Amino acid sequence: MTTKKLGAQTAALSAPPSIEGRACVVGRKEGQGPLANYFDYIAQDDAFGQSSWEKAESAMQKQALALALDKAGLAASGLDWLFAGDLLNQCIGSSYAAREQDIPFFGLYGACSTMGEGLALASMTLDGGFGERAAVVVSSHFCSAERQYRTPLEYGGQRTPTAQWTVTGSGAVVLARDGSGPRVTHVTVGKIVDKGIKDTNNMGAAMAPAAYDTISAHLRDTGRSPDFYDKIITGDLGILGSRLLIDLLNRDGITLSNHLDCGALIFDPETQDVHCGGSGCGCCASVLAGYLLKQLEEGAWKHILFCPTGALHSPTAAFQGESVPGICHAIAITAAG
Amino acid sequence: MTTKKLGAQTAALSAPPSIEGRACVVGRKEGQGPLANYFDYIAQDDAFGQSSWEKAESAMQKQALALALDKAGLAASGLDWLFAGDLLNQCIGSSYAAREQDIPFFGLYGACSTMGEGLALASMTLDGGFGERAAVVVSSHFCSAERQYRTPLEYGGQRTPTAQWTVTGSGAVVLARDGSGPRVTHVTVGKIVDKGIKDTNNMGAAMAPAAYDTISAHLRDTGRSPDFYDKIITGDLGILGSRLLIDLLNRDGITLSNHLDCGALIFDPETQDVHCGGSGCGCCASVLAGYLLKQLEEGAWKHILFCPTGALHSPTAAFQGESVPGICHAIAITAAG
Repeated sequence: MTTKKLGAQTAALSAPPSIEGRACVVGRKEGQGPLANYFDYIAQDDAFGQSSWEKAESAMQKQALALALDKAGLAASGLDWLFAGDLLNQCIGSSYAAREQDIPFFGLYGACSTMGEGLALASMTLDGGFGERAAVVVSSHFCSAERQYRTPLEYGGQRTPTAQWTVTGSGAVVLARDGSGPRVTHVTVGKIVDKGIKDTNNMGAAMAPAAYDTISAHLRDTGRSPDFYDKIITGDLGILGSRLLIDLLNRDGITLSNHLDCGALIFDPETQDVHCGGSGCGCCASVLAGYLLKQLEEGAWKHILFCPTGALHSPTAAFQGESVPGICHAIAITAAG
Repeated sequence: MTTKKLGAQTAALSAPPSIEGRACVVGRKEGQGPLANYFDYIAQDDAFGQSSWEKAESAMQKQALALALDKAGLAASGLDWLFAGDLLNQCIGSSYAAREQDIPFFGLYGACSTMGEGLALASMTLDGGFGERAAVVVSSHFCSAERQYRTPLEYGGQRTPTAQWTVTGSGAVVLARDGSGPRVTHVTVGKIVDKGIKDTNNMGAAMAPAAYDTISAHLRDTGRSPDFYDKIITGDLGILGSRLLIDLLNRDGITLSNHLDCGALIFDPETQDVHCGGSGCGCCASVLAGYLLKQLEEGAWKHILFCPTGALHSPTAAFQGESVPGICHAIAITAAG
């Protein structure tokens, strides 16, 4: 068998898996933003009827997966594998969501890059001939993330100008070896890149060098120019991180004129007071499952490079004076037909 | 392409990847146990020269990977992918260990089952034709785990009779598509199984139903009887959990006469005062990389089923009254030749 690896970091799928179902569930604030019409379900109660924020996140993730399965016309038993992750300690958002689902389960931790990691692993697993269908689901919740990473909401801490707002949202996609949806054609797996940023309220700056590294690797490995893609979409660099990415690529003579960032898309900077934009696993996952894939389905775009970004630190690491390692995975998706 | 999936949960590798390098690094207490001769490096300083237990764990994991690469005669640049995980919040043991390694990185969270999850994903990735070599490395550290999950060591909390002792250890293996080492032939991916155990000092009871579920699925999917294997080895059920597993299988008329448990093997119950045995990602990983693979290499055993077990809760989930979800992945490994 010939290798299906291109260059140092990219897997080229020989039979690109098809995205057969997609769904996203978000909270109230996200539903007041510019992408409201693209979300499948907007909760008016951010507690999702549960007694804790963590249980709310699990409920939201379970609902996103159920909706994606429904759109794909599948029962949970129709899935061979489930790839899932979130931001919470020990990934409890995902394990409790998957508990009654009876699907062989892979737990992932890639911080906000987890949708990219999941799409990469699910695509390679199906392309490798292991099963027919896999789902990827990830989530984040503003209230569970704030109390874990920063301060309890009741404390009313002041946010710094570079801060981003963790999205309350979950996105799920169902991939199939055969199908008629948009196809995952290439995945470029990121390395850990750490340029020494220690301000945990400036995730955009910590993750931008990782996005630069992975997007550069993808272009090098595939021989493509940025213009091959209708859009190159990062996960949650936010407004500042996006500027840094564009600047870093400019230094190599690469102009990124077709860049979008899910963190910058999901909230309205004028009216929603989120400083540098949205963040969290659920940010790019719900934007992918809601807005981006719809553009591919409707023919507005033909090729996109979806590049979720993650910051791999923890509060403990920050207290110990460590800098923030970043990672980014790039997933090339092509419209059907 | 025909599917390489057997039954509901098992992937059968068409070109079983070979284990080309293996190494384990453990702490002092582990080096005083019955498996001392099988460990590559026994630290006399559990801080590994670092200023925090978390940094010590990262240093240990980095060392285990470096030794495994060295035994495989490879530089880090010879790896296509790295699969890594640990027990710490946001998996910082792994991300900081992998930070300077420059290898495309997949972060995993499967609690103490992570070595199984990593072997499953790495094997399927290589068998699918994506690259030539991948490494899996996981770790746990008694001191970082105690303060995160239970109480700071200085508190001197009393341990309950069902408690297990988190192993300070890291195990790494290097898998290659071609090679002459023991081969991973099948992987059975576990589902989340939760029978309502809420005592977070009784992980063996929480995980035994998951081990029962996955081992049963493996035997069903492959049509093998337990006797096909020289040994069926669970991760860290410990002494109580192992009894529960044997009892659960007995009820189905299955006698497990060839069972071992890494948590029961790594410490001497008579002299080391660990109650129900060892636990942690690093427990089964270092026993695999040290003791188990050596038995296969030396011809003592021909076939083993390696079944790491994990408890997917968190302290927050326990405080909120949630039970402990368990998971187990089964990896069939056959001696070379």
